[in-house]
Amino acid sequence: MSGFGLDHLPYGVFSHLGDTPRVGVRLDDTVLDLAAATGRPELATSSLNAFLALGPEVWTETRAQARELLEGGSPTLPLADVTLHLPVEVADYVDFYASEHHATNVGRIFRPDGDALLPNWKHLPVGYHGRAGTVVPSGTPVVRPSGQRPGGVFGASARLDIEAELGFVVGVGSRLGTPVPHDAFADHVFGVVGLNDWSARDIQAWEYVPLGPFLGKSFATSISHWVTPLEALEAAWVDLPGQDPEPLPYLGPGATRGLDIDVEIEVDGVVVSRPSYRDMYWSPAQMLAHLTVNGASLRTGDLYGSGTISGPDADQRGSLLEIGWGDESAFLADGAEVVLRYSAPGTGGGRITLGEVVGRIEPARG
Amino acid sequence: MSGFGLDHLPYGVFSHLGDTPRVGVRLDDTVLDLAAATGRPELATSSLNAFLALGPEVWTETRAQARELLEGGSPTLPLADVTLHLPVEVADYVDFYASEHHATNVGRIFRPDGDALLPNWKHLPVGYHGRAGTVVPSGTPVVRPSGQRPGGVFGASARLDIEAELGFVVGVGSRLGTPVPHDAFADHVFGVVGLNDWSARDIQAWEYVPLGPFLGKSFATSISHWVTPLEALEAAWVDLPGQDPEPLPYLGPGATRGLDIDVEIEVDGVVVSRPSYRDMYWSPAQMLAHLTVNGASLRTGDLYGSGTISGPDADQRGSLLEIGWGDESAFLADGAEVVLRYSAPGTGGGRITLGEVVGRIEPARG
Repeated sequence: MSGFGLDHLPYGVFSHLGDTPRVGVRLDDTVLDLAAATGRPELATSSLNAFLALGPEVWTETRAQARELLEGGSPTLPLADVTLHLPVEVADYVDFYASEHHATNVGRIFRPDGDALLPNWKHLPVGYHGRAGTVVPSGTPVVRPSGQRPGGVFGASARLDIEAELGFVVGVGSRLGTPVPHDAFADHVFGVVGLNDWSARDIQAWEYVPLGPFLGKSFATSISHWVTPLEALEAAWVDLPGQDPEPLPYLGPGATRGLDIDVEIEVDGVVVSRPSYRDMYWSPAQMLAHLTVNGASLRTGDLYGSGTISGPDADQRGSLLEIGWGDESAFLADGAEVVLRYSAPGTGGGRITLGEVVGRIEPARG
Repeated sequence: MSGFGLDHLPYGVFSHLGDTPRVGVRLDDTVLDLAAATGRPELATSSLNAFLALGPEVWTETRAQARELLEGGSPTLPLADVTLHLPVEVADYVDFYASEHHATNVGRIFRPDGDALLPNWKHLPVGYHGRAGTVVPSGTPVVRPSGQRPGGVFGASARLDIEAELGFVVGVGSRLGTPVPHDAFADHVFGVVGLNDWSARDIQAWEYVPLGPFLGKSFATSISHWVTPLEALEAAWVDLPGQDPEPLPYLGPGATRGLDIDVEIEVDGVVVSRPSYRDMYWSPAQMLAHLTVNGASLRTGDLYGSGTISGPDADQRGSLLEIGWGDESAFLADGAEVVLRYSAPGTGGGRITLGEVVGRIEPARG
């Protein structure tokens, strides 16, 4: 059981022997050259974007075609022989903060005497824009960022952290001035990626008032090579844990379904946490409806992250800030390697394994 | 004196009689079809990006060539006969907060009993990422956004505002992990645009803690049709008013030059304010050095805004929040039309007029 069987078939962009990157589909430890096998010009490009723009009907057709080709024994390339690339040319990148457990933990750490959650938190999925140009594929080394730490002291970040998240990839855009309703989620969102929102806590702590995180986050965001289509996650939908107060009409009630995805965080070969995406407070469809309620338009290639996935228990925390809880040695040392793994119920009765997200820390430069 | 003489020659993207958009240069009230006149393929495209990526030497050559063609009497099209488009395909959009007068005014309005400036403000140019996909060209109508206002009440924004800014367009990208030094500004930045960062103050006030502005800004950001190259602003450089404490080495000291650009804000035909960009605290080169000090890479088409341009006097405020100072009737009504105008000393001894930024408010939908 590789987790990459016929019920999964995630999409990625690969090249072979230095030729032009193109779209492929993964089956076990092999890749089907979907561009060549289908002759579809939108797949013979260096990102999934042209294919994503074609919309849900074509996504369904193409998935069926890929499955048919593979069942019919179409030749594939060994995964070990190909180079994998960033799967999506990211248009806008937005990051949310949708885990109540994470937001509560962070509130307790930073404001021990105040309310753990801020007044807006249960009314809307808090989010902000991140840097699309520094979204990198799994395996890209992460250079330790330098910058201003509290008090305006310059230096390399001493509190380098991860945020284990799920990312949602938008396929079909929308019109400026027209919100996307909560029940139109599947008309726009193609699938999901694993996502590590690398964070320099000391840089972030100094800069973030009043306009939010900037350089503490913008040095790198890693995503998996493989994009799992929503169709492969049909067996993973679950009810959210519950929302109180009841969200405003534009945020539901039909949008209160989450995903039963298990996450595993490994640092230097040791599993340090196992959060579950099913414990999130705000749903993927609610985040999308909120993102556009002011009329902001979507574009093909938009990416939005869930925010750190933390569960209710101490061994389910999605960031080292929470895992260490005041212990500075929990942050990442030079050379540290982080692997995020994700799995979910597949439609075939077993489990599928989403694309992993790997990154190793390189020392600060200069 | 049109302000668009031979010492200006800004770049834009236009189409004529419904044909394909391409790059042109403006002279007075005419447009030179630079794509046709030079035969350069990078100019025969629907954005300036391919041309911008060619770098400063080609920018200088092309400007000289355009001037030569126009002096030689090359035929031009009347401005009235062409359609103007968004000049740049925006990669990442960052907005700064670089006016001390604006930040102080906002601090006094929102925190009357606290310090007007937050502790980090004089140590670094505070900034955040905005939504690149909703940057629109001058003249695009702005639909009044709806969303959550304080307390989680849903409705159309009742505090719709402007922010008069200057935008900087990046031509040449940089490598991930390698900061851009403060003295490399002109190797990367091609030129400037007028910029209106439309803001829904009530939406922003409720959502912005702790991750910054999101839907209060992301519905629209308007920029001028014309991009003024830095070469046309050579006579406009002035010293900054002064910085105390002295910035960290990565922010200067060679980067402490500002631009002597006058701004005029007109609402419904009445000039309501005349700020000057020469009064800004942080310089364009300092903002760029800060943006990349953590190793974040630049891409062709990146756009960064100065933040609201406010001067020391009451008639030099760059937002209606400041102009009204507590008077709710200062915010924009449906149908209101805002025009931002910019002028600067030209290299020919007179003044040049940068591209104006126009927007009219349409009523909220639904």
